[in-house]
Amino acid sequence: MAETMINVPFEGRDRIRIGLIGAGNRGSSLLGNLLIIDGAEVRAVCDVSAERAGAAADRVAAASGRRADTVTDATAVIERDDIDLVIIANPWELHTPLAVAAMKAGKHAAVEVPAALTLEECWALVDTSEQTRRHCVMLENCNYGYNELLVLNLVRDGVLGELLHAEAAYLHDLRRPLMTRTAWRRKAHVKLDANLYPTHGLGPVAAYLDVNRGDRFVRLTSMSSASRGLDVWRDSHPDELDPSTAGEVYRCGDINTSIVATEQGRTILLQHQVVGPRPYSRRNEIVGTKGIFTDFPPRIFVEDPDDPAQVEEYVELDTFRDYEHQLWTDEGARAREAGGHGGMDYLMLLQLITTMRSGAVAEMDVYDAAAWSAPSALSFASVAADGAPVDFPDFTRGRWAEARPGIR
Amino acid sequence: MAETMINVPFEGRDRIRIGLIGAGNRGSSLLGNLLIIDGAEVRAVCDVSAERAGAAADRVAAASGRRADTVTDATAVIERDDIDLVIIANPWELHTPLAVAAMKAGKHAAVEVPAALTLEECWALVDTSEQTRRHCVMLENCNYGYNELLVLNLVRDGVLGELLHAEAAYLHDLRRPLMTRTAWRRKAHVKLDANLYPTHGLGPVAAYLDVNRGDRFVRLTSMSSASRGLDVWRDSHPDELDPSTAGEVYRCGDINTSIVATEQGRTILLQHQVVGPRPYSRRNEIVGTKGIFTDFPPRIFVEDPDDPAQVEEYVELDTFRDYEHQLWTDEGARAREAGGHGGMDYLMLLQLITTMRSGAVAEMDVYDAAAWSAPSALSFASVAADGAPVDFPDFTRGRWAEARPGIR
Ligand SMILES: NC(=O)c1ccc[n+]([C@@H]2O[C@H](COP(=O)([O-])OP(=O)(O)OC[C@H]3O[C@@H](n4cnc5c(N)ncnc54)[C@H](O)[C@@H]3O)[C@@H](O)[C@H]2O)c1
Ligand SMILES: NC(=O)c1ccc[n+]([C@@H]2O[C@H](COP(=O)([O-])OP(=O)(O)OC[C@H]3O[C@@H](n4cnc5c(N)ncnc54)[C@H](O)[C@@H]3O)[C@@H](O)[C@H]2O)c1
Repeated sequence: MAETMINVPFEGRDRIRIGLIGAGNRGSSLLGNLLIIDGAEVRAVCDVSAERAGAAADRVAAASGRRADTVTDATAVIERDDIDLVIIANPWELHTPLAVAAMKAGKHAAVEVPAALTLEECWALVDTSEQTRRHCVMLENCNYGYNELLVLNLVRDGVLGELLHAEAAYLHDLRRPLMTRTAWRRKAHVKLDANLYPTHGLGPVAAYLDVNRGDRFVRLTSMSSASRGLDVWRDSHPDELDPSTAGEVYRCGDINTSIVATEQGRTILLQHQVVGPRPYSRRNEIVGTKGIFTDFPPRIFVEDPDDPAQVEEYVELDTFRDYEHQLWTDEGARAREAGGHGGMDYLMLLQLITTMRSGAVAEMDVYDAAAWSAPSALSFASVAADGAPVDFPDFTRGRWAEARPGIR
Repeated sequence: MAETMINVPFEGRDRIRIGLIGAGNRGSSLLGNLLIIDGAEVRAVCDVSAERAGAAADRVAAASGRRADTVTDATAVIERDDIDLVIIANPWELHTPLAVAAMKAGKHAAVEVPAALTLEECWALVDTSEQTRRHCVMLENCNYGYNELLVLNLVRDGVLGELLHAEAAYLHDLRRPLMTRTAWRRKAHVKLDANLYPTHGLGPVAAYLDVNRGDRFVRLTSMSSASRGLDVWRDSHPDELDPSTAGEVYRCGDINTSIVATEQGRTILLQHQVVGPRPYSRRNEIVGTKGIFTDFPPRIFVEDPDDPAQVEEYVELDTFRDYEHQLWTDEGARAREAGGHGGMDYLMLLQLITTMRSGAVAEMDVYDAAAWSAPSALSFASVAADGAPVDFPDFTRGRWAEARPGIR
C-alpha cells in the first residue's frame, strides 16, 4: 500500500503550466478565469471539437500573446512534458480515466465535478494519487462561494455551537439543456436512478463539518421519486428536442433524497432534482446547538443567551458580515468582475494556482474528491435496494480524524 | 376480521355530547373552541388535577349556563351513558388506551396527536374501531391551516401537476417547556431515539397525496443526529430546571430525519427537532411536475408554459388566493377570532362536530390516525437498525387505493 497524500504539499514552482481538456461550456468558463490569474499558463487545449479547442487557444493568444497548442486527443495533452497540471472539464465518464492517466504521466490533475461515478473510480483516484505522488483536486467551486466561506468562518468560530445536521442539494431545472443539447449528461438519466450530482451541495457542508479532517461520512440511505420530468418535457416541447431523445427511457427518479450519517453523530440531508420546474437551490444548511444557517435565500438564526425574549425569526446573513472570509475581502471585487458563478470559480482557481505556486498543501484533496463524489454510486446502490443503508469506504485509510488544514 | 370503517358515516344527531379528558394546555384550548361551536355540549371534564377540571367546568358553565361534571378518573367519563364523543388531550402514553376504552364503551373517540406510539397501538385503534363500529379521529389541526387547505385545493386542481415529493416536519424549540414543566413529554426524550411528533407535518402532505385514498405509505428509513440540546440547556439554565431533570439521560437525537416512500412512487422527507434554537417550521412542501409549494415562509413557483423567459423565483402564495378553501372563506373570520393556532383548531373541531351532526363520513379517520402516527414507531426501529428501511403496515387492509372523500 502506498503512502498517504494527506498533508503532502505541492512541489512549488513559479509558473503553473496547464493542459485543459474540454473546451465546452465549463472549460471555456474556467479558461476565462485562468487567463487572469498570475502564474497560470495554458499551454495546450484539447477538445474533440477542433473548433472549440481552436477558439479557446485563440483566447489564450489574445490574453497572453502566446497561443496554446490544440489537440483533439486528450492523450496528446497528458503526455506532453511541459505541463504541470491537467484540468479536466469534459463529460463525467471521462473524469476518472483522464485524471488517472494524467497522474500516471506525472501531472497533477484538477477534475470537474463529480470526480468519479463509481466506488471503483473513487478508489482509482486515491490509489493512483498515492502511487504516483501526484495530486487530484476536484474543482468544487461552491466551496468558495461568498456565503459558504462566510459560514465556514462562522462555524469555525463556534457561532452555531456544536454542529449536528446539515442539508445539501442540487436543485436546478436543467430540462431544456438536457433535452436540447447536452446528450452525454442526459444519458445518465437513462442509465442510473441516483443522485447524479452530489458535490455542489455536499462539498461546502463537508467543509463545515471537517469531513476527512475530524469526521467522516459513514453511511447513506436513499430513495427516489418516480421519473416523470423529462418525459413531460419531451411531450410538451416536440419542436425543440435533440433527435437522440427519441425513444429514450429515463430511469432516474426526478427527486432523489438521501440521508448521510457521520462518525461524529451528524446527519446530512442530500437531495437532487434537475428535471422539474423549481427555483435553484443548494440548500446549504447547517444546524448547531446554538443556531442555524440555511440558504436559498440565505438566512440565519443564532440564539442570544442574554435575551430570553428573542424573536424566533431568521435574520439576513448580512448581520454577520464581520465573518466575511479574507479571500472575499481581498479578492472579491476582482472575482465578481471575473465572473463565473458570481466569482467563486475565480477564487477556487486562484487558490489552486496559488497553492501550487507556493508549494502548500491543497485545500481540497483526493480524499475529498472521492468522499464527495461517492454518493452517486452509494445512492444508486441504496435506491436499488429499497433504501437499504450502504457504507462509505474510508478513503483516508483510517486517517479521517486527524485535524489538518482545509480551506484556509 | 371485522369490517372496514372506511366510508362508514357517523350516525347523525343534533347535539354532540362531549366528555373531555385532559384540561391542561391543549385541553383548555380545545375547550375554548368547543364552547362556541353550535351543537357541541361539553358534559364532563376529567383531569387528574381536580383544580384544572374544575376551572374547565366553570368555563362551560359561564358559556352555556350548564356546568360540566368534573372527575379525576378518565373511566368515569368514558362509562357515562350521556356522552357521544370522548376527546382525549392528555399525555401521549394515554392516547391509545383511553381511545380504545372509549370505543369499547360505545363512544366515538377524538384523540390528540400522536394517536399511537407503537405499531401495536396503531393496530389497536384500527381493530377496536372496526370491532366496535365507533370512530377514532386524530385531532390533526394542521390539516385545517389556511395555507394547507389552499394548497390542498391547488393540488386537487392539478396546478402543481403530478405530485412527486413532499416535505414535512416539526421544528419547534420546546427546550424551556420541556425542561421546566412538561415532564411527561420530556420522558419520551429519555426513552426513545425517534421522530416523536410526526403528524403535524405529515397530515397535511398525506392529504395532498391522497394517502389512504389512492396512495399509501410503504417504507421508511430514518437517522438521528447526536443528542445534545437538552443537556446544553440544562447546563446553561440551572435555576429554571424542573428538579426531575436531575440525572436524566436524553437518548433522543436532536434532529431526526426520515424518508418515506409511497406506493405511487412519491417520496416524503420527514423531520423532527424540538430541542434546539431555530425558527418554527413544518416545512409543508409539495413538489409536482408543474411546480412547487414550500412553507415557512410560504412561497410557490408554478411553471408558465406560455412564458419561456419566466423568472425562476418563488412568488407569494397570495398570488393564488383564488384557491382559498371554502371553509376559510365562510368561517375564517370567526376562526381567527376564536384563536387556537390562528384559527385552524376551530375549523378542525367545527368540521368534526358538523360531520357528526349531519351523519357524514369523517374527514380524517382511524386509518389516517394510524398511518400518520406510525412513523414514531417506525423511525425508532429504523434508527436502532442504523437506517435500515422498515415497512408500514397497510392499516386499510388492502383498501388504500379506493378514491374516497377526505377533507371536503
Ligand atoms: N463546477 C461547475 O459549476 C460546473 C458547471 C457546469 C459544468 N460542470 C462540469 O463540467 C463538465 C463539462 O460540462 P459542460 O457543461 O462544459 O459540458 P459541454 O458538453 O458543454 O462540454 C463538454 C466538452 O467536452 C468535449 N469532449 C467530449 N469528449 C471529449 C474527449 N474525449 N476529449 C476531449 N474533449 C471532449 C466536448 O466536445 C465539449 O466541448 C461536466 O463534468 C460538468 O459536470 C461544472
Ligand atoms: N394539536 C396541537 O396543536 C397540540 C398542541 C399542544 C399539545 N397537543 C397535544 O395535546 C396533548 C396534551 O398536551 P398539553 O400540552 O396539554 O400537556 P399538559 O401537560 O399541559 O396537559 C396534560 C393534562 O393531562 C392531565 N392528565 C395527566 N394524566 C391524566 C390522566 N390519567 N387522566 C386525565 N388527565 C390527565 C394533566 O393533569 C394535564 O392537565 C398531548 O398529546 C400533546 O401532544 C397538541
